[in-house]
Amino acid sequence: MNQSEFEIIRRYFAESGLYFPRSGVELGIGDDGAALQVPTDSLLIMSMDILVEGVHFPLLAHPAQLAHRALAVNLSDLAAMAADPFCFTLGLVLPDANESWLAGFSEGLLELAQEFNCPLVGGDITRGPLSITIQVQGLCKQERLLRRDGAKVGDLIYVTGTLGDGAIALASFGLDSHLGPTFTVDKAKQTEACKQHFHNAYYCPRPRIEFSNNCAEFMSSGIDVSDGLVGDLGHVIKASGVGAVLNTKLFPYSNSATSCVSESNRQLAALFGGDDYELCVSVPALNCKEFEAAAESVSTQITCIGEIVTGSAILCLDSQDKQIDLSSGAYMHFSGAN
Amino acid sequence: MNQSEFEIIRRYFAESGLYFPRSGVELGIGDDGAALQVPTDSLLIMSMDILVEGVHFPLLAHPAQLAHRALAVNLSDLAAMAADPFCFTLGLVLPDANESWLAGFSEGLLELAQEFNCPLVGGDITRGPLSITIQVQGLCKQERLLRRDGAKVGDLIYVTGTLGDGAIALASFGLDSHLGPTFTVDKAKQTEACKQHFHNAYYCPRPRIEFSNNCAEFMSSGIDVSDGLVGDLGHVIKASGVGAVLNTKLFPYSNSATSCVSESNRQLAALFGGDDYELCVSVPALNCKEFEAAAESVSTQITCIGEIVTGSAILCLDSQDKQIDLSSGAYMHFSGAN
Repeated sequence: MNQSEFEIIRRYFAESGLYFPRSGVELGIGDDGAALQVPTDSLLIMSMDILVEGVHFPLLAHPAQLAHRALAVNLSDLAAMAADPFCFTLGLVLPDANESWLAGFSEGLLELAQEFNCPLVGGDITRGPLSITIQVQGLCKQERLLRRDGAKVGDLIYVTGTLGDGAIALASFGLDSHLGPTFTVDKAKQTEACKQHFHNAYYCPRPRIEFSNNCAEFMSSGIDVSDGLVGDLGHVIKASGVGAVLNTKLFPYSNSATSCVSESNRQLAALFGGDDYELCVSVPALNCKEFEAAAESVSTQITCIGEIVTGSAILCLDSQDKQIDLSSGAYMHFSGAN
Repeated sequence: MNQSEFEIIRRYFAESGLYFPRSGVELGIGDDGAALQVPTDSLLIMSMDILVEGVHFPLLAHPAQLAHRALAVNLSDLAAMAADPFCFTLGLVLPDANESWLAGFSEGLLELAQEFNCPLVGGDITRGPLSITIQVQGLCKQERLLRRDGAKVGDLIYVTGTLGDGAIALASFGLDSHLGPTFTVDKAKQTEACKQHFHNAYYCPRPRIEFSNNCAEFMSSGIDVSDGLVGDLGHVIKASGVGAVLNTKLFPYSNSATSCVSESNRQLAALFGGDDYELCVSVPALNCKEFEAAAESVSTQITCIGEIVTGSAILCLDSQDKQIDLSSGAYMHFSGAN
């Protein structure tokens, strides 16, 4: 290796276009820290996600795709709070200073960063086993902040997009799944278009920023379902002091999932899969019409999948309205399975 | 392992006292992100540092010491910008969920976090090779912000505390130094008190927050010398478009360094060692008296070690006022040496 840390930062990050001017960013890459001017009517929202090679993404994943995914999953957390992207910081641990890897990685960040007006303003880079830490900063007017603890009995539960594609993607890549050995994709039915769909679902999840900004006023709580619907909705009901009923027959699946994954595995992926960067939100019944219209106006598919009820548990009904045992648990990073 | 990520967060971070109330922190651990209310007259300052096991700290380092160091080095970056600590986020990659390690680590953070009124407000935790990423957030009034690009010809160059102890500490631990095989501590002269001093210098560096807050108005630029004086002052002169002259005979060393490290090695450690979390600042000549009084009022040792001059290089003079060749380079994370 012959490039210093400073040279890497200069070449692939500071001067690659990633550190572009943005209102509110007073100082970015190149000092001991970044300096932000937060608008007086806004809260600053921060969220951090770490991706570790071999744990959160396959070994030898394409650097541009990886970069895209790393930033997208962080932006998804901003969407879950109805915040607008402001800027991000990057902590990069690299085994070596491979130029083509760095160029691809930087390029993969650039597209999303520009689209969401979210420049890179700082971070750290060092040698070690490959991991990518991103912290996104967002802005949100206090009265629009979407929290986990606002769900009320009688609210309807909606999800954006489709469920289960993230976990199905990992099975489609041929990787072991924490959902067990019977969680598989039917290879005979998996077309090239299906493969491409799952690949995109995994590497290019679409942060639901536009949706959450447009619909914030109609929702009472929100979370992204990156750890699986049961686990994440579990956080909402715990924080809100309520229970929930889910109807699996209402769950939205992609055509690809429907065509090459069994119904029971689709359901397993939706409930416990994780890696879906969709939002699960609660909406007071009185707001539903306006909420649905607001979602449609930004072309976001939403589906009502259940209701907030009294209690403290999630009751999940199958297609015959029989209760499903949810005790198998949500995705847990330290459970040993993944 | 039988503890989930959420249980670890709850037990060792959210409920350990680290997430304490602080004015301006509206929402912390427990949602998709944290929410901060930044005072209208302040900039939000952010800085991130990553520590990787085996690269930035010895294998099997004590978790409480490691935690203290990880937070202290980040607070040092805030000091270098004259910012007040606000809150921090933590990205923890752990090979396993060892309870005593987590308890020690959490405890090590707590002391500094409380002292500097800087609660933990979020982050991420996951499985993988041990690394610790901290992002600190600070607050700074716009007119007090201490940047790298403000040094002017004629300003005097000061450092806080003593130089070289960080690099000497690593040699004292018996580790290989990037300063080469002749960079050693004289074991015969190294007392227990010296060992303890170097240990503290490495694991418990004192962030110069109080100093920089008290003296900000008198300084024209600042940086911390965590990558070595030559490398870091190099950033200042480049950003400021000036040159610098350093007089090594003025360098401040600790009694421990003086008693068990040769003069040439002390100088090497000061110039290129890194791991010193002291500040190097420039002070307009007219401000020097007030600056020195302000530093004394917060009991901070400061030493004038040189001057900002015209040009674009650092000229370094030895004790006989002969020029030292600085071409051996500053600490570089990707240079292969460390």
